[in-house]
Amino acid sequence: MTEQIRVTIWNEFIHEQEDEEVKKIYPDGIHNAIAGFLEKENDISTKTATLQDVEHGLSEDILDETDVLIWWGHIAHDKVKDEVVERVKNRVLEGMGLIVLHSGAMSKLFRSLMGTTCNVKWRHDEKEIIWCVNPGHPIVAGLENILANEDYIELGKAEMYGEFFDIPEPDELVFVSWFEGGEVFRSGCCFHRGHGKIFYFKPGHETCPHFHDIRILQVLANAVRWAKPVSWPKRNFGNTNPVIDVEE
Amino acid sequence: MTEQIRVTIWNEFIHEQEDEEVKKIYPDGIHNAIAGFLEKENDISTKTATLQDVEHGLSEDILDETDVLIWWGHIAHDKVKDEVVERVKNRVLEGMGLIVLHSGAMSKLFRSLMGTTCNVKWRHDEKEIIWCVNPGHPIVAGLENILANEDYIELGKAEMYGEFFDIPEPDELVFVSWFEGGEVFRSGCCFHRGHGKIFYFKPGHETCPHFHDIRILQVLANAVRWAKPVSWPKRNFGNTNPVIDVEE
Amino acid sequence: MTEQIRVTIWNEFIHEQEDEEVKKIYPDGIHNAIAGFLEKENDISTKTATLQDVEHGLSEDILDETDVLIWWGHIAHDKVKDEVVERVKNRVLEGMGLIVLHSGAMSKLFRSLMGTTCNVKWRHDEKEIIWCVNPGHPIVAGLENILANEDYIELGKAEMYGEFFDIPEPDELVFVSWFEGGEVFRSGCCFHRGHGKIFYFKPGHETCPHFHDIRILQVLANAVRWAKPVSWPKRNFGNTNPVIDVEE
Amino acid sequence: MTEQIRVTIWNEFIHEQEDEEVKKIYPDGIHNAIAGFLEKENDISTKTATLQDVEHGLSEDILDETDVLIWWGHIAHDKVKDEVVERVKNRVLEGMGLIVLHSGAMSKLFRSLMGTTCNVKWRHDEKEIIWCVNPGHPIVAGLENILANEDYIELGKAEMYGEFFDIPEPDELVFVSWFEGGEVFRSGCCFHRGHGKIFYFKPGHETCPHFHDIRILQVLANAVRWAKPVSWPKRNFGNTNPVIDVEE
Repeated sequence: MTEQIRVTIWNEFIHEQEDEEVKKIYPDGIHNAIAGFLEKENDISTKTATLQDVEHGLSEDILDETDVLIWWGHIAHDKVKDEVVERVKNRVLEGMGLIVLHSGAMSKLFRSLMGTTCNVKWRHDEKEIIWCVNPGHPIVAGLENILANEDYIELGKAEMYGEFFDIPEPDELVFVSWFEGGEVFRSGCCFHRGHGKIFYFKPGHETCPHFHDIRILQVLANAVRWAKPVSWPKRNFGNTNPVIDVEE
Repeated sequence: MTEQIRVTIWNEFIHEQEDEEVKKIYPDGIHNAIAGFLEKENDISTKTATLQDVEHGLSEDILDETDVLIWWGHIAHDKVKDEVVERVKNRVLEGMGLIVLHSGAMSKLFRSLMGTTCNVKWRHDEKEIIWCVNPGHPIVAGLENILANEDYIELGKAEMYGEFFDIPEPDELVFVSWFEGGEVFRSGCCFHRGHGKIFYFKPGHETCPHFHDIRILQVLANAVRWAKPVSWPKRNFGNTNPVIDVEE
Repeated sequence: MTEQIRVTIWNEFIHEQEDEEVKKIYPDGIHNAIAGFLEKENDISTKTATLQDVEHGLSEDILDETDVLIWWGHIAHDKVKDEVVERVKNRVLEGMGLIVLHSGAMSKLFRSLMGTTCNVKWRHDEKEIIWCVNPGHPIVAGLENILANEDYIELGKAEMYGEFFDIPEPDELVFVSWFEGGEVFRSGCCFHRGHGKIFYFKPGHETCPHFHDIRILQVLANAVRWAKPVSWPKRNFGNTNPVIDVEE
Repeated sequence: MTEQIRVTIWNEFIHEQEDEEVKKIYPDGIHNAIAGFLEKENDISTKTATLQDVEHGLSEDILDETDVLIWWGHIAHDKVKDEVVERVKNRVLEGMGLIVLHSGAMSKLFRSLMGTTCNVKWRHDEKEIIWCVNPGHPIVAGLENILANEDYIELGKAEMYGEFFDIPEPDELVFVSWFEGGEVFRSGCCFHRGHGKIFYFKPGHETCPHFHDIRILQVLANAVRWAKPVSWPKRNFGNTNPVIDVEE
């Protein structure tokens, strides 16, 4: 039996309850759209959590059973308790994988891990084309079957995010997006932080059905596999015994 | 007349007042040792500031006149007010250069900019040898005159800092140190954050005369030049007017 | 007196002699258009060299007097002698700066230094917009005066170059371009190789007057300063004497 | 049934036939020592090839059946035919994984892919300690079981390789080594080139039994998994049809 990667999908879950347009696209919430796809993968099991849950659904117990956390948030970043942000951040530095979606870039969690504002330019409703600048990266695996005749992902309508995107230079830049109105954006970015791996992925505006799109979902499944924890070396800091005797 | 890079050198300034051993090495404080050297460079002017000053000597007015900030701190990281940390961090993201020395790695400022713990292994009193892994980098300019016969910097006695050093992967790794007891350490690390440039440099333990050492001081002068602000493009975020009309 | 950076500008120099359209834009050749601008900078002196010169104008003597080499080539990459390519490559690894323009990406020299094909997608005559993804980089210095109201460089007409651009991941990515037809391109890329620094810059198709454009020329002048040689540590390879006695 | 990664292990295979000391350590050759271990992994199948084989055992047919190539060479780099080097290089750029061991750093293949000399300092017979500077990287997976009490790999005796190691800055730096005599070395380096992934790993001098060492072999098995091909996007260069109609 294949070992399971345990994924927790966190969603702010406000738009889908308050906005009719969004509710039509994601009647069960963005988290369940993602979970529904990932759950079918042999090597992935899923849980969901939302802002409204006790401790936002991110208690120490839940995190103990989470290998990779997926994060979607937009209009309620300031409603997420600092204590939970700190807890999740520590888990990432200890090795838990993290996948941050769309406007999750502006979440307290992502900003705190990046050390920068993570601000962007933005504008609504434009065509987006996603290009891969890192062929052979595991995060694009399997797209050859879905996109047999194309070497890009075209999204008919998306929110424009434009440079300068105030993030540290990604450790691995995978995707760069083109927008109809003239902007470009580093839309798929890998970061190593502490023992953890973080993938930022730009698609997923609440009024666009990107999480029903097999191309986007395939990238998410790949990102889960890329971000899964590796637990060596141990976090071993502070005043140490010499590994080799120093000459007196 | 050469344009001046305006440097403010910040020092915690506790050891030099309380510890006789340190006082002998730096009677006027680490900040003044560094300032005394940099001041002689044609293109650099200096100010100093310490923890004990009003607003730690880092008021908005002082920062308005600072192109590059040098930071030395060790035992009083928690005494630095959060408000000042936030103010300085914002300045770095807006373009002010920052040079962080030795245990400044564990300061609130550096940790906040890195997003990680910045923890290290450590041990006292060992020989250190600093190797350059990025020849041709501007931060090593001029060392050919000082180190004509050597391609490394040997420090007779230093504090050991060992890996894993919990920082993001440096954007440019310049130096790696060797320690007598068996450890290695990424001891010269460049980071780009927002519009600012940050250099972390490991030497400078308070009981070692590294800031009287022409090799270390030359690296600092180079780092000042490397870190000086460049002010394009403007920080331009948020909902923008299209630069190009989107087809209706 | 300011120390001069000695720049040699190399041009294939065929289009300007054979094609009327190009001749009108660059009557004295692309090399002289660039030299005319750089020569006015206080800290830069220039020479030019072309494919037609003896040893392509790149003898050991000329290279001895070259701090930074600028390279423009397009339709005659295969006419450049392997011996000269090897000679120039060695100089770069020894510390000479190199700036490669436009289709110079497909030159033997650049391909040999990169180790990849450097192939691109391409198409003629489209609007291009160049965005900075690395604010604060010295290569964009001074653009705030030229582009006071814009945080991008718009080129009315250019040749489209599109991803995947088969280069190693740049050590510092400065510019990403947008094209009218839907593509993006990493158009300003820094590489460190050996002791040398290399900047690839995409603009400069022979039928476009980019080398009369102050925005493009300012980037070139900055790149010259960024790429200038730094000569420490010495190239010191092979079987060495121990720097520290190994215990017997 | 798990999908197999097809590995071809290439060895110069001279020392083991000519040098009694080496023959004792690797009676069947370094290639068979590595193959013997990898073959036991469920997801890996192996072939071997040597310098002495027709086309050095690296015909197009063999390469068609190779997902990842492992390369060990030392004293006969110049005996490898340029035609084979070119063929293998192209395969790497097309997506085949490559793992280069020890003095394979100075092979024509690796030098051609790196674009630099790949020269090192060296000296015989010293203690080496390998530190991880990239915890959580898949190349160190599983070492927690083998090295439960240590966060480093100590090799009792090894050949010293020292900086400056003339390679491009690695895309992911995983290991840095310490040597008894005072040097450091970037000993585990990941590169992305074209569609291929390359891992350089320093251990493996012919007079040291490193390829019987479970810690080194575990890293090799991990590297095989990390380097396996991903085949999207297609290599799609040249004059393209517009993906979007350009406005006339």
